[in-house]
Amino acid sequence: MEKPASAFSRVRRRPKRGIYQREVIEAILDAAPFCHVGHIVAGRPVVIPTLHWRLGRNLYWHGNAASRMLKTNAGGGEVCVTASLFDGWVMARSGFNHSANYRSVMCFGTARALIDPAEKEQALAGFMEKRFPGRWGKLRPVNHQELKATLVLTMPIEEASAKVRTGPPHDDPEDLVWPVWAGVLPVLLGYTAPVPAPDMPLGVTDAPPAPP
Amino acid sequence: MEKPASAFSRVRRRPKRGIYQREVIEAILDAAPFCHVGHIVAGRPVVIPTLHWRLGRNLYWHGNAASRMLKTNAGGGEVCVTASLFDGWVMARSGFNHSANYRSVMCFGTARALIDPAEKEQALAGFMEKRFPGRWGKLRPVNHQELKATLVLTMPIEEASAKVRTGPPHDDPEDLVWPVWAGVLPVLLGYTAPVPAPDMPLGVTDAPPAPP
Repeated sequence: MEKPASAFSRVRRRPKRGIYQREVIEAILDAAPFCHVGHIVAGRPVVIPTLHWRLGRNLYWHGNAASRMLKTNAGGGEVCVTASLFDGWVMARSGFNHSANYRSVMCFGTARALIDPAEKEQALAGFMEKRFPGRWGKLRPVNHQELKATLVLTMPIEEASAKVRTGPPHDDPEDLVWPVWAGVLPVLLGYTAPVPAPDMPLGVTDAPPAPP
Repeated sequence: MEKPASAFSRVRRRPKRGIYQREVIEAILDAAPFCHVGHIVAGRPVVIPTLHWRLGRNLYWHGNAASRMLKTNAGGGEVCVTASLFDGWVMARSGFNHSANYRSVMCFGTARALIDPAEKEQALAGFMEKRFPGRWGKLRPVNHQELKATLVLTMPIEEASAKVRTGPPHDDPEDLVWPVWAGVLPVLLGYTAPVPAPDMPLGVTDAPPAPP
């Protein structure tokens, strides 16, 4: 994927920020804890946030089997899955040159619902292991009813692009002496102290580390 | 907006998490630094991250006048603007009862491009003042060419809904004794120290405070 897989997935605006390398796309998908799935319902665009995960060259998302989004996605309609990380406010001397630092991936395609319960369970275990290594084996095992009530969708990461901005503001040369602070206010997704469930017995104290 | 404005904007999945109160919707739009705009291009859904802001009962987004997204949006097609904040991983005793804490808003409608330069400038000033109060007046003033090169879109916040999950995991009663850590790993958008632009003269040291 050194080049866009299709004219549709080519980055249009600021094409120099467009990246089509698989490792960059995969790293952003792994770093973003959640994504936004866009699909068409009754002719109108609908964008819904959901958790996603990547295993190999495939993207996954899931939820309750009764979900309108998932049923629509499983029906074979086109989707656009976009995962974005906001990395900072870029403050220039002019309003016009203000910007944002970010990493973003768009994946286009059609999704497939996993049918085989074993394949489903493997994908769900992969999700947990990706975000919280070692946790799946410690959990109360998943049962038949739960697998049935869970719809797992997958889509190959093929028609995809990344877009990234980093670094300081780019001001017009004549603005550099303007007496206002310029630079970047870096933003990050951080974690505060884990909050144990109020109904957890004393003695179970192994809070998992936050995902990277 | 105590009730959904339309059947389309009614929260389907987990309807108890659906909220239609204007103050809740506005607070989430103000807290989220960026949103995802979904629209339809050549019959396919396209979801693009962008900065947004709210002034009164209207939502705004903007960018380069050459942007495909903005030109499509300005053309009167339906959009879905979704702004989401990921607040925490919710860790249960079973994989099935794992969840996420989040705040999310979806706004449906069609956008209008601001034409009048004064109205445009007022909207852009409102954006800066909303995120960085007092900064607009310190900047090198916006000029005619910049206003012309900037497309500002607005949409009334009418057909909108919020969806929120907070609090601890909800496990099956028989799982409560399962010996695994359960609780919430809280996530927040945080800021690290401002990074001054390398081309900023010494002495300009008033880095603006991070937005709330």
